[in-house]
Amino acid sequence: MSDILFRLEKILEQRKDQSPDTSYVANLYHKGTDEILKKIGEEASEVIIAAKDKDGVVHEVADLWFHTLVLLAHQGISSQDILDELDRRFGESGLTEKANRPG
Amino acid sequence: MSDILFRLEKILEQRKDQSPDTSYVANLYHKGTDEILKKIGEEASEVIIAAKDKDGVVHEVADLWFHTLVLLAHQGISSQDILDELDRRFGESGLTEKANRPG
Amino acid sequence: MSDILFRLEKILEQRKDQSPDTSYVANLYHKGTDEILKKIGEEASEVIIAAKDKDGVVHEVADLWFHTLVLLAHQGISSQDILDELDRRFGESGLTEKANRPG
Amino acid sequence: MSDILFRLEKILEQRKDQSPDTSYVANLYHKGTDEILKKIGEEASEVIIAAKDKDGVVHEVADLWFHTLVLLAHQGISSQDILDELDRRFGESGLTEKANRPG
Repeated sequence: MSDILFRLEKILEQRKDQSPDTSYVANLYHKGTDEILKKIGEEASEVIIAAKDKDGVVHEVADLWFHTLVLLAHQGISSQDILDELDRRFGESGLTEKANRPG
Repeated sequence: MSDILFRLEKILEQRKDQSPDTSYVANLYHKGTDEILKKIGEEASEVIIAAKDKDGVVHEVADLWFHTLVLLAHQGISSQDILDELDRRFGESGLTEKANRPG
Repeated sequence: MSDILFRLEKILEQRKDQSPDTSYVANLYHKGTDEILKKIGEEASEVIIAAKDKDGVVHEVADLWFHTLVLLAHQGISSQDILDELDRRFGESGLTEKANRPG
Repeated sequence: MSDILFRLEKILEQRKDQSPDTSYVANLYHKGTDEILKKIGEEASEVIIAAKDKDGVVHEVADLWFHTLVLLAHQGISSQDILDELDRRFGESGLTEKANRPG
């Protein structure tokens, strides 16, 4: 499997040392958590719009995942933690789905 | 890297053959795209709430990613397409970030 | 003009004295701010879905406004404050729109 | 009660005749439904963020209501329709709340 999530995580970590003027991500870090969260809300809406149009879903889901990765980096959380959480719920057998289903 | 995304994708594919009564995911498929999109909107809100509380972010991001994976499965899109899109933007050098940054 | 917003505000105030078992709103108050906010996120998504379908927009906007009124009541804010804010921006001449436009 | 909603509706109607260059609202109309819906998603997120901070809720709810009014104007729906819908649910006695509660 592609390790793009981890390479992306590394890039997002490097952005913490860059100037807000030179990087979109560094600028988001600089503006802070609320700005990142607004982007997540906005990108979720764009996923909904794209899915209704059945057009651009890949692009918008990538945008949404990307901005959640920015949030994770900003809060010092590894994307591996998300994968581990998904693995805990679904990894072994899929039989655990029902018991752990989101409310 | 964990291949949980692809194992999860396989599980989500198998859910298409199951009864809505026996699986949360099969039930979401049965209710259709709008129901899945409502969940994505709801889970994005829960990420925002959790991030403000600095509590439960891993759980809520996992929920959000999970429901986008359900959407992808429902629309016949592979999660590899999302990873490829992220790879296209960020994979080689990270230098492409600025040119391809989300609007 | 209909004074439904203020009558609704009064009803929402009365709900504070009711049991969570007997009223949807009292139950939302009981669950607290996060639950109300999740509903706002969900209802906003439903407005987006309805607008894309050009069907049910009135119903979904009413749901969204209703849940923002629940939030206001829960936080002790009057809906008049919202109307005053809109009036401050747009009321006299509409000429103020540009200067006060949302970012 | 203030008739600001109806005065605002009238202003939003007048904006349909203006150039996108000279008015924020005319520009939103020009960009179309999806752009208005993205704003609604974004403003809902900002309400959530403000409510968590207990700061700026009036401003953000006003922004959210404003953008739903833009959507209504863009789709030829009167804000009176929303008030009528709320009145139908809650106006007479408040006793109808439970039967008509949002799912």
